[in-house]
This record gives sequence, C-alpha cells and structure tokens, in this order.
Amino acid sequence: MSGLFITFEGTEGAGKSTLIKEIERWLREKEIDFVSVREPGGTVLAEKMRAILKTPSPEEKLCDKSELLLMYAARAQLVETLIKPALAQGKCVICDRHDLSTVAYQGGGRGLPMDEIDAVRNVALGKFRPDLTLLLDIDPKLGMQRARSRGVLDRFELEQLSFFERVRKAYLDAAKRLPYIKVIDASKNVDEVRLAAISALEDLL
Amino acid sequence: MSGLFITFEGTEGAGKSTLIKEIERWLREKEIDFVSVREPGGTVLAEKMRAILKTPSPEEKLCDKSELLLMYAARAQLVETLIKPALAQGKCVICDRHDLSTVAYQGGGRGLPMDEIDAVRNVALGKFRPDLTLLLDIDPKLGMQRARSRGVLDRFELEQLSFFERVRKAYLDAAKRLPYIKVIDASKNVDEVRLAAISALEDLL
Ligand SMILES: Nc1ncnc2c1ncn2[C@@H]1O[C@H](COP(=O)(O)OP(=O)(O)OP(=O)(O)O)[C@@H](O)[C@H]1O
Ligand SMILES: Nc1ncnc2c1ncn2[C@@H]1O[C@H](COP(=O)(O)OP(=O)(O)OP(=O)(O)O)[C@@H](O)[C@H]1O
Ligand SMILES: [Mg+2]
Ligand SMILES: [Mg+2]
Repeated sequence: MSGLFITFEGTEGAGKSTLIKEIERWLREKEIDFVSVREPGGTVLAEKMRAILKTPSPEEKLCDKSELLLMYAARAQLVETLIKPALAQGKCVICDRHDLSTVAYQGGGRGLPMDEIDAVRNVALGKFRPDLTLLLDIDPKLGMQRARSRGVLDRFELEQLSFFERVRKAYLDAAKRLPYIKVIDASKNVDEVRLAAISALEDLL
Repeated sequence: MSGLFITFEGTEGAGKSTLIKEIERWLREKEIDFVSVREPGGTVLAEKMRAILKTPSPEEKLCDKSELLLMYAARAQLVETLIKPALAQGKCVICDRHDLSTVAYQGGGRGLPMDEIDAVRNVALGKFRPDLTLLLDIDPKLGMQRARSRGVLDRFELEQLSFFERVRKAYLDAAKRLPYIKVIDASKNVDEVRLAAISALEDLL
C-alpha cells in the first residue's frame, strides 16, 4: 500500500520546521515509517538547484521565469528520485514546503500568471499531489519577527513585507479551491498548533 | 533597430564552435557589432545551471523532466539578462546551441513529448525565436570521431550512438517545419561549411 504524502506550507517564520519536528516525534511514537525532506532541495542534485535559488545574487537578478522553472526542476527531481519511491515502499513522506509554495511565492509574490504555473506543473508533476497540506497561516509581520531572530536572510527573506502579504493571500486563496489543504492558525502557541496538526493527521490516517 | 539573433546547432563534433570562430572573424571584418554566447550558460547564474546539466552524476540520475526544466531555466535567464538587451541595443547575438537543442536532445534523444516541450518553451520564452538557425548536419559517428579527440566527455557525450541518431533525426524534422532553420552539410571541410554559412548570413543581413 502506498504511503501518505504530507506537506507543510506557510510564510517565513510561520513555524513549519518547528511543527515538523513535533510531527516527526509523533510519527515515531506511533511507529509509522516516514522520511522527512525539504524543498527546494532534498536530493544531491536538487540541493544544487536550491543553492542557486536561495543565495542572494546582487550582481545578476534571477529572472522570475527562471526562478519558476528552477523550482520545478528541483521539485521534479525530488519527486522522481525520492518521494515517489518512498511512497511506493509504503512510507509516509513529510515535506517542508512543496508545490503550494510556488503558487504562493512565484504566483502571488512575483505575480506570474497562474496558467503559466499550471502549465509547468503539468509537465513537472503530472497529476501527482499531496494527500494533505498543512498551511500555517500567520500575519507576515509576526512571522518575520519570529524568523529574524535566526540571523542571515536568504534571497526570499530579503523581500518587502508587501511581497509576503501577497504570498499569504495566494496561500489562502488556494486553500479555498483545494480540498487537501487544511489551514492552521499559526499565531497560536506551539502546543496548540501541534494539536491542530495532529487532529488533521488523525483524520487522514 | 534590433540586432539579429543567430543560433548554431548540431550534434557533438558537428563543428559549431569551429564555425562560430570563423563567423566572428567575418563579422569583425564587416564591422558588425555582436556578442557571442553559448548554451546552456552564458550568464553567471545560467553557468551554475550548466554545471548541473553537464557534469556526469553517476550516484543520482538527473530525471528527464528536471533536465528539460533546468535547460529552460538557464535559457530564460540568458535571454532576459543578456540576449534581449543586446538585441535591443542593435547588436547581433551569436549563440552556440539554443532552443533547437532542446527539441533535438530532450525531445528526440530522451523522448519527451513535443507538446510538453512546447508548453515549457511558451512559459520560458513566449514568442521569442532566432532570426536564423544554422543546423550543422552530420552523421553522429563522424561527429563523435571529431569530438573524441578533445578528451573528457560530459554527461551528454557519454550517451550511446543511437541517442545521437535520434537527436539528428529530430533536428532534421524540425528543419522541415521551421523556415528560419538552414541545414548545412557539416561533413564538408571547414572552408566549404564557412562559405555555406556566410551565404545564409548574407541573405539575412
Ligand atoms: N507557534 C509558535 N509560537 C511562537 N514561536 C514559534 C512558533 N512556532 C515556531 N516559533 C519560533 O519561530 C521561529 C521560526 O520558526 P520556524 O523556523 O519553525 O519557522 P519556519 O516556518 O520553518 O520558517 P522558514 O520559512 O524561514 O523556514 C523559531 O524561532 C521558532 O522557535
Ligand atoms: N568541417 C570540419 N571538418 C573536419 N573537422 C572539423 C570540421 N569542423 C570542426 N572540425 C573539428 O572537429 C572537432 C569538433 O569541432 P567543434 O568543437 O567545432 O564541434 P562542436 O560542434 O562545437 O562540438 P560540441 O557539440 O562538442 O561543442 C574539432 O577538433 C574541430 O577542429
Ligand atoms: Mg523552516
Ligand atoms: Mg562546441
């Protein structure tokens, strides 16, 4: 039997990585076999693409279309090389960001047309989708305050607040359209966020 | 007035780089302002993508879709950052491989469906096309003999002869469809190839 594919989404500092650690512990307690990866990246070749996407490049701007195509190049590589084989072995796959980040960042944030994103996704992923996406929704101002405490900012974290407002809106718009997205209020404390996530996972399992 | 965009195509060892040097000399003699680039690559960020595409990776196969998307990520970056601005300044742009290589290698060679390539091209490049493509057609066996003399093989050069037979066929099929492609018999000597290329350039200029 195929495993379940669960993705975690949200703007900077929403608490994705924190929640994933909690969920990993919960899966281990339940003795559910899983692998945990992050996007962009997660394989040797996809991490090389991540470096291009994440490293600030003041001398040469990465153009929006190139950013989109590179995101999907990394995603196709991760899905084919790691995610699909793990699911086929019956493992659950936990992913820190996935396709919805592209809808939100390249679509909402950069303003690329949704039909162009759909066309590239169709080539990169076909009909492959998560079984569940946990969207950690938070006011970007609060998320940025949380994230800032961590130090050096990557190429995306250097964007303006208005960029992240558009990202948040695109996330929430997508949640209205796609039934596999569950929105969690991420302004709550870590315990409350964990309980909301586990409740969604129990519904699924 | 916009400059002209001229691309050079053909399988390994067809003589693209050799011909480009001849054409650069000819353009200098004619005092035509030009820039000369290669694909994949040609900008700092696109060269990083080139490294992923060209370096053999025995531990992890780059999947075909990721190869396609990465090619177009590099191409979009080169076109937006360098080619379009140069053309807008009235310069000619000479390019060692461009879009037709994807039709031939990812389409013919890897067997990716042409409608998927068309969909990604449409996002990456819109309606941007070369003014002239010089296709150096050669029996891949002869081309490989020429190329081998250069030493270390990249990830594509490591392919079987049958791969390059499919690449050649896809190149020639495209030449039947697209009026801006001029086929040159590249089994001829360097002088004859140069004269055929210059004749096509004179028709254009
Ligand atoms: N529910 C919460 N309440 C308060 N602080 C939190 C909460 N969740 C996480 N944090 C803290 O906020 C900061 C950012 O959290 P985390 O790294 O998990 O966010 P993230 O969504 O993974 O961010 P990024 O998108 O940058 O990877 C950390 O210092 C973390 O301890
Ligand atoms: N018309 C020709 N006749 C004979 N030898 C040639 C001819 N053109 C090029 N060569 C030789 O063939 C070899 C390959 O040529 P070149 O590097 O120009 O090919 P290429 O198409 O650029 O190859 P690649 O796709 O690998 O970059 C070189 O040693 C070159 O000197
Ligand atoms: Mg994180
Ligand atoms: Mg060459």
